[in-house]
Amino acid sequence: MARLPAAAPAGVLASACGGRLVGDGSSVVEGVRSLERAGPRDLSFVADSRAEAAAGASAAGVILARSAGPFPGRTVIEVPDPSAALAAILASVFTRRSARPGVHPTAIVEEGGRVAPGAEVGPYAIVGEGSDVADGAILEAHVVVGRRCRIAAGAWLHPHVVLYDDVVVGPRAEVHSGAVLGADGFGYAPGAAGLRKVPQVGGVEIGSDAEIGANTCVDRATLEMTRVGDGTKIDDLVMIGHNCDVGRHVVLCGQTGLAGSTTVGDQTVLGGQVGVGGHLRIGKGVKAGGQTGISSDVPDGASIYGRPHLPYKDALRVQVELRRLPETARIVRELAKAARGDEVKG
Amino acid sequence: MARLPAAAPAGVLASACGGRLVGDGSSVVEGVRSLERAGPRDLSFVADSRAEAAAGASAAGVILARSAGPFPGRTVIEVPDPSAALAAILASVFTRRSARPGVHPTAIVEEGGRVAPGAEVGPYAIVGEGSDVADGAILEAHVVVGRRCRIAAGAWLHPHVVLYDDVVVGPRAEVHSGAVLGADGFGYAPGAAGLRKVPQVGGVEIGSDAEIGANTCVDRATLEMTRVGDGTKIDDLVMIGHNCDVGRHVVLCGQTGLAGSTTVGDQTVLGGQVGVGGHLRIGKGVKAGGQTGISSDVPDGASIYGRPHLPYKDALRVQVELRRLPETARIVRELAKAARGDEVKG
Amino acid sequence: MARLPAAAPAGVLASACGGRLVGDGSSVVEGVRSLERAGPRDLSFVADSRAEAAAGASAAGVILARSAGPFPGRTVIEVPDPSAALAAILASVFTRRSARPGVHPTAIVEEGGRVAPGAEVGPYAIVGEGSDVADGAILEAHVVVGRRCRIAAGAWLHPHVVLYDDVVVGPRAEVHSGAVLGADGFGYAPGAAGLRKVPQVGGVEIGSDAEIGANTCVDRATLEMTRVGDGTKIDDLVMIGHNCDVGRHVVLCGQTGLAGSTTVGDQTVLGGQVGVGGHLRIGKGVKAGGQTGISSDVPDGASIYGRPHLPYKDALRVQVELRRLPETARIVRELAKAARGDEVKG
Repeated sequence: MARLPAAAPAGVLASACGGRLVGDGSSVVEGVRSLERAGPRDLSFVADSRAEAAAGASAAGVILARSAGPFPGRTVIEVPDPSAALAAILASVFTRRSARPGVHPTAIVEEGGRVAPGAEVGPYAIVGEGSDVADGAILEAHVVVGRRCRIAAGAWLHPHVVLYDDVVVGPRAEVHSGAVLGADGFGYAPGAAGLRKVPQVGGVEIGSDAEIGANTCVDRATLEMTRVGDGTKIDDLVMIGHNCDVGRHVVLCGQTGLAGSTTVGDQTVLGGQVGVGGHLRIGKGVKAGGQTGISSDVPDGASIYGRPHLPYKDALRVQVELRRLPETARIVRELAKAARGDEVKG
Repeated sequence: MARLPAAAPAGVLASACGGRLVGDGSSVVEGVRSLERAGPRDLSFVADSRAEAAAGASAAGVILARSAGPFPGRTVIEVPDPSAALAAILASVFTRRSARPGVHPTAIVEEGGRVAPGAEVGPYAIVGEGSDVADGAILEAHVVVGRRCRIAAGAWLHPHVVLYDDVVVGPRAEVHSGAVLGADGFGYAPGAAGLRKVPQVGGVEIGSDAEIGANTCVDRATLEMTRVGDGTKIDDLVMIGHNCDVGRHVVLCGQTGLAGSTTVGDQTVLGGQVGVGGHLRIGKGVKAGGQTGISSDVPDGASIYGRPHLPYKDALRVQVELRRLPETARIVRELAKAARGDEVKG
Repeated sequence: MARLPAAAPAGVLASACGGRLVGDGSSVVEGVRSLERAGPRDLSFVADSRAEAAAGASAAGVILARSAGPFPGRTVIEVPDPSAALAAILASVFTRRSARPGVHPTAIVEEGGRVAPGAEVGPYAIVGEGSDVADGAILEAHVVVGRRCRIAAGAWLHPHVVLYDDVVVGPRAEVHSGAVLGADGFGYAPGAAGLRKVPQVGGVEIGSDAEIGANTCVDRATLEMTRVGDGTKIDDLVMIGHNCDVGRHVVLCGQTGLAGSTTVGDQTVLGGQVGVGGHLRIGKGVKAGGQTGISSDVPDGASIYGRPHLPYKDALRVQVELRRLPETARIVRELAKAARGDEVKG
């Protein structure tokens, strides 16, 4: 499936990932495919020892593997970590596209909007009043940028991204289709005639090299900035409430949600469908398993899981006992009955 | 509410659902409504025995019911399954709209994009380089189709659908507004300066007659294809991670999420807000209740529920005991105390 | 961050929130900021007693606080509830924007679509056949409105909102970007060749002053109307299934989902990531904590939590015992062993 932009000899790919070539370095690679689907002009990879049998049977012309030993006569690139090496090769071959400078004739740049000459603004895109789009930034088709936004150099907004007013997207950050940055936070005050909206007049700041998934929502702060730090990766359909401060190099997997005013420390990883309450402090380097429910602060470096969240090992023990709970409860009822019998007898 | 496109006599509707008409076959039906709201020119239906009283009191001109017995003097279409019969009547009357062939003057077809003469491309829609739109396909307003995509005959993309590059949408498949097909999978490798993106260079393939809900995301594969099989129905706000392979006639309810590289067998049904871990194998004909958390393989035909997921009946037993847990634990503490007392006495 | 549209003297702001001014009423306020970031021309607020130290150290020119006592020499607006007072001040200063009457030249109003002279229709927006947009309504850029919709006076649809056919948006309701109202409900009937779609031919009705979050989906009813009541506030990424009837002044937090045909009573509050089954009746004034799973009816006024959902206090007790479960189970096994020993000895 994945055809290289240009065919490359195995030796070049070995260099790209720092591997040791065994076999024919001039073997030409035109594509990268799974072991099952690869052909003689494809590169494939042996992710782990279980994949070795499939690799032996694969028609792949070049194989990334820990060792060439199991594949005599084949062209192999030996690397300590085949998955990481594959990533390196893909990154060397499939480079991120550059801006094609220019503003499409159907795009609308409102009064006081500034598009640098090296930026690309696609069809039907809109740049609001007083917003800046820097050199190398890409606004794909149908992107709507509100007022007073700043899109930094090399940032890439995919089709149909929406930015409300006062949103900053950092250098080289990538925002996927349907993501909405800066919609009003969910803030209401009780009033005589039901809830009264608290105006949300802050903004959103996305750091450099961050990535925001498709249809993800990052709400604007009430007064200041909702923040997503440098290098942080956010998956699809994630919700970041108003006034949150998500640190650097954080990973938030799909469908996870943070209620308002919560901070997340650097390098923390939250699995999919995790829910985090409001006004909490999640430390640095925390790891939370999928579907964890976090309703209190989490210290730096903690590995947690479950609902209520517990240290990972404790959560697993709870899970084991949960499965056994009907049997445990049955024993308790028997013991209680026996004890009552003793009393009667006693 | 639901007005028929053209008035129809009761006899014709009886034929449409294979029912037996009792009463006046020439009664004219102009709309289909709930029992409470139906009037003399409306058809309504008796879903089950509890609805019979409401049906007796309803002003509906024609009633779909298991038996005309309880409704003397009324016009009734007798059918073994009134809900299924209603579905059949609705399907016969409200047929899917056909393409209105032509490319709207504001639509953009990029170089090498091909739109068949019988396809409809709506206002502000975009067809990318090298993409194909077949006869009878409908691209509604603001749809963005990337490069090298194939939209098969009769496929229907609702307003604001986004397809990245290399996405295939099968014959008659329907994709609802805001769905994003082919956004980058969530793949990173650890690097010296934080996480390094692994280029996602595969695609997405949606089978024939599949339906994808509003704001749902199906991510592109790293190398090959993320797949959704023929006839599979996916609800709103669902997330399908990269490299997943979802079988045929599968049902995924709202807000469910599959992490990457998971396969789901044919005819499996996952309830709402189910979470499925990565690299798992969910069998064929599996049923999972709402909010189930699936973190290990599931065999064919299993009926599961809960978190951790268990066979359905076991999960219900665990739920029952969970409610009793504080009382059970209290008894345990008492028994332990008594036992310690015994020891002391002993 | 939050700059006032026009500078205001402290005395005017005190009047806006009904507070008592202590200090210099002519102090000019140009912005509203957090205590840490506020400067001498900013207003800030002391949310609670813990914030008093930060308030003392703050450079804020004007402080909203319960009492001026702790802040001698400062300009203070005394109010019983500083957070509510801040909301009142923000609401008085940051008024909702009004429609800028007119239809953008790139907008498309289809045959029989009616846009009142006082309505605003933004760039690339589309108003479908037979739809009405009332005075004061705002359709921002790229909004797509289907056929036979009614957008009432003062309703505000943010960029990229999509309405299918037969959707009603009430007076002053606000719909955030990416929300999809009226996509087909998830209704299928088993057929010979897999699932057969049940045509969804009802509509959606959003009440007055309601607010719908970004990327939220409200599906159309099968026959009648899916309803969201007056004054109800729905957060981002929420899913409302077909035929639901959500009452007035309800609050649904982020990523919550309601399956089809469920009713939710007035003034109910569901936390984030709550899942509600189909065909249920959730009463009035119910409160459900985050991630609660609701699979049976809930009476008026209940406060519930957990999965399975329980009265709030019971759910907390279950959580406490769940954490202790491995230890409790260990004791049970010991007691059982001892009992068996007794039997043997006996």
